[in-house]
Amino acid sequence: MKRLSLTVSIILFFCFSFQAIDAQQLLSPNGNFRLDFSLGTAGNPIYQLSYKGKEIIKPSGLGFALKNDSFSLLDGFVITDSVRSTVNTTWAPVWGEVKSVTNHYNELALTLTQSKARRRIVIHFRAFDDGLGFRYEFPAQENLTYLVIKEEKTQFALTGDHTAFWIPGDYDTQEYDYTTSRLSQIRGLMKQAITPNASQTPFSPTGVQTALMLKTDDGIYINLHEAALINYPCMSLNLDDKHFIFESWLTPDAWGDKGNIQAPCVTPWRTIIASDDARDIVASKMTYNLNEPCKLTETSWIHPMKYVGVWWEMITGKSTWSYTDDFPSVVLGQTDYSTAKPNGRHGATTENVKRYIDFAARNGFDAVLVEGWNVGWEDWFGHMKDKVFDFVTPYPDFHMQELHEYAQAHHVKLIMHNETSSSVRNYERQLDTAFHFMKNNGYDAVKTGYVGNILPAGEYHYNQWMVNHYQYVVEKAASYHIMVNGHEAVRPTGIARTYPNMIGNESARGTEYQAFGGSKPNHVTILPFTRLLGGPMDYTPGIFEMDISKVNPGNKSHCNSTICNQLALYVTMYSPLQMAADLPENYERFPDAFQFIKDVAVDWDDSKYLEAEPGKYITVARNAKGTGNWFVGSVNGDSVRVSTIDFRFLAPGKKYLATVYADAPDAHWKTNPQAYVIRKYVVTRESRLRQQCAPGGGYAISLFEK
Amino acid sequence: MKRLSLTVSIILFFCFSFQAIDAQQLLSPNGNFRLDFSLGTAGNPIYQLSYKGKEIIKPSGLGFALKNDSFSLLDGFVITDSVRSTVNTTWAPVWGEVKSVTNHYNELALTLTQSKARRRIVIHFRAFDDGLGFRYEFPAQENLTYLVIKEEKTQFALTGDHTAFWIPGDYDTQEYDYTTSRLSQIRGLMKQAITPNASQTPFSPTGVQTALMLKTDDGIYINLHEAALINYPCMSLNLDDKHFIFESWLTPDAWGDKGNIQAPCVTPWRTIIASDDARDIVASKMTYNLNEPCKLTETSWIHPMKYVGVWWEMITGKSTWSYTDDFPSVVLGQTDYSTAKPNGRHGATTENVKRYIDFAARNGFDAVLVEGWNVGWEDWFGHMKDKVFDFVTPYPDFHMQELHEYAQAHHVKLIMHNETSSSVRNYERQLDTAFHFMKNNGYDAVKTGYVGNILPAGEYHYNQWMVNHYQYVVEKAASYHIMVNGHEAVRPTGIARTYPNMIGNESARGTEYQAFGGSKPNHVTILPFTRLLGGPMDYTPGIFEMDISKVNPGNKSHCNSTICNQLALYVTMYSPLQMAADLPENYERFPDAFQFIKDVAVDWDDSKYLEAEPGKYITVARNAKGTGNWFVGSVNGDSVRVSTIDFRFLAPGKKYLATVYADAPDAHWKTNPQAYVIRKYVVTRESRLRQQCAPGGGYAISLFEK
Repeated sequence: MKRLSLTVSIILFFCFSFQAIDAQQLLSPNGNFRLDFSLGTAGNPIYQLSYKGKEIIKPSGLGFALKNDSFSLLDGFVITDSVRSTVNTTWAPVWGEVKSVTNHYNELALTLTQSKARRRIVIHFRAFDDGLGFRYEFPAQENLTYLVIKEEKTQFALTGDHTAFWIPGDYDTQEYDYTTSRLSQIRGLMKQAITPNASQTPFSPTGVQTALMLKTDDGIYINLHEAALINYPCMSLNLDDKHFIFESWLTPDAWGDKGNIQAPCVTPWRTIIASDDARDIVASKMTYNLNEPCKLTETSWIHPMKYVGVWWEMITGKSTWSYTDDFPSVVLGQTDYSTAKPNGRHGATTENVKRYIDFAARNGFDAVLVEGWNVGWEDWFGHMKDKVFDFVTPYPDFHMQELHEYAQAHHVKLIMHNETSSSVRNYERQLDTAFHFMKNNGYDAVKTGYVGNILPAGEYHYNQWMVNHYQYVVEKAASYHIMVNGHEAVRPTGIARTYPNMIGNESARGTEYQAFGGSKPNHVTILPFTRLLGGPMDYTPGIFEMDISKVNPGNKSHCNSTICNQLALYVTMYSPLQMAADLPENYERFPDAFQFIKDVAVDWDDSKYLEAEPGKYITVARNAKGTGNWFVGSVNGDSVRVSTIDFRFLAPGKKYLATVYADAPDAHWKTNPQAYVIRKYVVTRESRLRQQCAPGGGYAISLFEK
Repeated sequence: MKRLSLTVSIILFFCFSFQAIDAQQLLSPNGNFRLDFSLGTAGNPIYQLSYKGKEIIKPSGLGFALKNDSFSLLDGFVITDSVRSTVNTTWAPVWGEVKSVTNHYNELALTLTQSKARRRIVIHFRAFDDGLGFRYEFPAQENLTYLVIKEEKTQFALTGDHTAFWIPGDYDTQEYDYTTSRLSQIRGLMKQAITPNASQTPFSPTGVQTALMLKTDDGIYINLHEAALINYPCMSLNLDDKHFIFESWLTPDAWGDKGNIQAPCVTPWRTIIASDDARDIVASKMTYNLNEPCKLTETSWIHPMKYVGVWWEMITGKSTWSYTDDFPSVVLGQTDYSTAKPNGRHGATTENVKRYIDFAARNGFDAVLVEGWNVGWEDWFGHMKDKVFDFVTPYPDFHMQELHEYAQAHHVKLIMHNETSSSVRNYERQLDTAFHFMKNNGYDAVKTGYVGNILPAGEYHYNQWMVNHYQYVVEKAASYHIMVNGHEAVRPTGIARTYPNMIGNESARGTEYQAFGGSKPNHVTILPFTRLLGGPMDYTPGIFEMDISKVNPGNKSHCNSTICNQLALYVTMYSPLQMAADLPENYERFPDAFQFIKDVAVDWDDSKYLEAEPGKYITVARNAKGTGNWFVGSVNGDSVRVSTIDFRFLAPGKKYLATVYADAPDAHWKTNPQAYVIRKYVVTRESRLRQQCAPGGGYAISLFEK
């Protein structure tokens, strides 16, 4: 490592001697981050990054290998312009963890010109107090209009064999448990990390996905991700595990091409968030700040919501999405459901949905999601079937109009479900019809799904063509004033700032896996460091019955979590869309614990991360929007731990009734997950709390101003 | 050959001895065709076909190799059911060569069961007096719902080294000149047959496209094609040139899969049209008969038409589709045309379109096609660009409303042009908008275009995904009462019977190639034997100025045809959509010859093929719909030839004023293409005509009842 630094220094010196502007520095506003940019002897762009004087990214390459092009965009550059600017503003998100976000950065825009090819690119670096973002710009110019990316060669050269919290790089799914290991161990652990999925395309034995969380041995937390993924393939990272250099690895199309670029345009931002305090990572708003401001002129129709759904009963196998067992094959418009024999296990019946509406209304939920309401579920998956669903034809036992009226009378909204089965063209063809239908029937939010391989063959869930599809759906939905919660779509990259109707995404291993064999107990201590940095997740927490066989005797899965861990998730897993995922009857068995889910807010004026360590614990306090009330959530990893917090976040001079929902001393995610204790105190900002957390446990606190 | 026949006979005998229904025969109504079906020793389906007692298809295999399936659909079959039926009906096409089509066939439907795999298929054979059609049916059943075709193994084992009229097999284009050669010569001639195209994917050195025209040494004409290509990949043929066996070769998807099948369903028909009189081939309606009856409930809005267009001037390079030379790159919605400098060569200006409307109105044309009217043409091609066109935004110099009113006042329709640049998703997303826009602006017909490689990458112009796209456009257009003329789409297979709003297709090498270097002079003597069997072609005839440099000095191409050949095309190349493609000023130079184009009909009550020989000549007489008038066209191949016809097709006892537009004695497609003689006679059905035709020449006759 030392030697390489020396070489680079020599190169820098060499360049300096001929061209004074070949090396550039950029400092973050607080001076903690320092970017150094230079050109190597071949005119190759190099950047490096330090934090508080310590190198965190060693000299790393930038640029592109191109297809069908006699020149690459990797070298032969000279710096021909350099523009610096500073921005310091605030913006108010339509929904979020805080009511106001500060966007403060210093920018350095370097124009790099290849004199031989007579073309230029601009690299924009933005140094924030929480990290660095940079992107490539392709300005309009005569000799560079279209290009096909063979490889983006953006490097992140790390300073050592850090600890990584990673999931396998894959073109089609992020639904993996996180593995915690040294970088050098990734290769050896890859095979076991690749657990089965309905559609999956791992690409390399050292490929991992972003957001990637890293921790150095000297206690610096580093997060690598991207922001503003628009009209570009999703970036994964591939590790050179001899030198600990990650390089961008884009998702290809059917030809293996990794992006079709038309100038003028920009790439997404590549982001490095870093701190010696892990709480700064989870609190960072840099990803949002690197996105464009809201493009919707009117947003009053967008509202955070807490919901229940006809869902967990199908996920566990207790009931079915399908209506009948009669049909081995369904042809939409031809298969006659009117004479089919109901299988008796259909979830989305009028009667059952009414039961959920009643439950929602009784307990203050805003909405009810219903899956399996539309015909086609008997034969929906795994066959590259073109016309799987039509998004408008309900099953005979699902009475649209009746439920619309019933929901309206109970002041509850229904959430539409549009599973596409990854037949993307079929969905796009019907999108207007589907959204019209929703508006006509009182739905203002849709959960989309992309289970299985993308049709047409050759496309991947995360390539440019599909990224454009998800964006198309979000924008089209906005034109109908419809909110979107996209499942199996590409992981978000802060785009919800620009299109706040994108109120949720799955795009990670969600609660459903607790019914599919279970997730690691510390999974939820990592997600806020990774998946959540780009936007909220529809994680669907709130499972109270951990023994899934009690819901469906045929299902031996276990939810690897205590009840208090589940409660805490409503606070630790920030989302404007929070489900109470379990069955009503399971909540009715634990009304005292359920009270927290009823009480907890879904929109916030402020958030304070009190404790955080990836893989181990996260404790956060949030101030419910427009109130003085606070909610605290704490999730714990694999071992017993005592959380110690104070309440300095509370308003001075005020008293609060605190209800603490905590693991019982003998609680454990596996052996005793339903053991909890509820205590009530009066607290002020001078109060302190020491709370023991079970393995896979945690606690939740509601704080109501007295 | 003898040996193989003997083997098959033995097999048949062997099977007979155990199972009486293992061999089956089917005769055409007139007895000329005899199909023999049997199962080989491995339970493999075999068919053979004879015509007038002569074998024309030797024992040939049937079935499918499947992907990811432990069984194929190639053998292990027993015949478990056999159903015979006869149909003899007539139907009236919405437009066509004749006012009534006879559909007369004997059908044999054989259920073939694989006992081991417990599944079955049905092969339907239909013997017509003009040939044989057969298709595979996959009935609904427990053990066969979805299958992925690896290869369709339908064989056409020929009896010798026939003469073939072929174009290279290609997944993306049919725009090739025909090569006439022995089957054994195909391999050696393939390389030179593959001329450049904007998108092309040849697949085999012995691959050819259908409709494939063949002639045996003993004078039997055989045509291999398909009918009713719906939800299935387009079929080409690959030749085993040692044994002269063609086998079906389907167009794959990005994974190489050749069709995703969901039972219950049927494949397209595989067709063998044969006769010892070549006129029977071009007159055959078997391809239409194998399609479903019209599915449109109301068809009064569909009308044949003769049109001119702002088109040839761009094709020749005289003017441009684009408006300006300012933009190396266009971003729809961002590129500002309002301040762009016009290049002065834009074809689709309001003024120029008005000139064409005037010309159309003055000369009795129904419509004017305008290309290059919408923004984006500065940068439309070859870059896998997603958003190329929006189909609703005219150039600043094209005044939509003004032209709408002007056309209406002149009783002329405008024909819309929707070039997709093969960005298929972009078109589908905007289809409703585009069709609404057309209706609002008085357009009732659209010419679509698919130039360049299909976006998304990995799809081909002729694979299942794209076949479904073209069908989607036709059906969507029908719902708007819009007629479709699809260019670069898959070649038609008689679907216009079912959706008669599909009034035309290009899907072959059209007249435009006369401005791109020229086509073979005998090209138009082959197209009626091949491309036209599946449906009309928008061939855009009527070029009067063969020296293209006189239109655009920079273009040295030559139209390889005499003027009289061009006139004859209006009759020989049947289409309900006929363009007079040349510039108005070129027609004004030859008003006497132009008179034929003004006079000729575009819809017919009857058609009589008087002479036909592929590659050499075609002479046809057609009775203009609802009148007593007839039009005759004759096109000639490479050598001087005397055409001898009688007029027995005329009504008895009636006299007709015949105007004969014939090549001058010294005319020649290359050296003297504009030399013609116009003669007028009074003729009756007793009259005869001997007319010399120049190389690349021909003649046209109008016959008006006196």
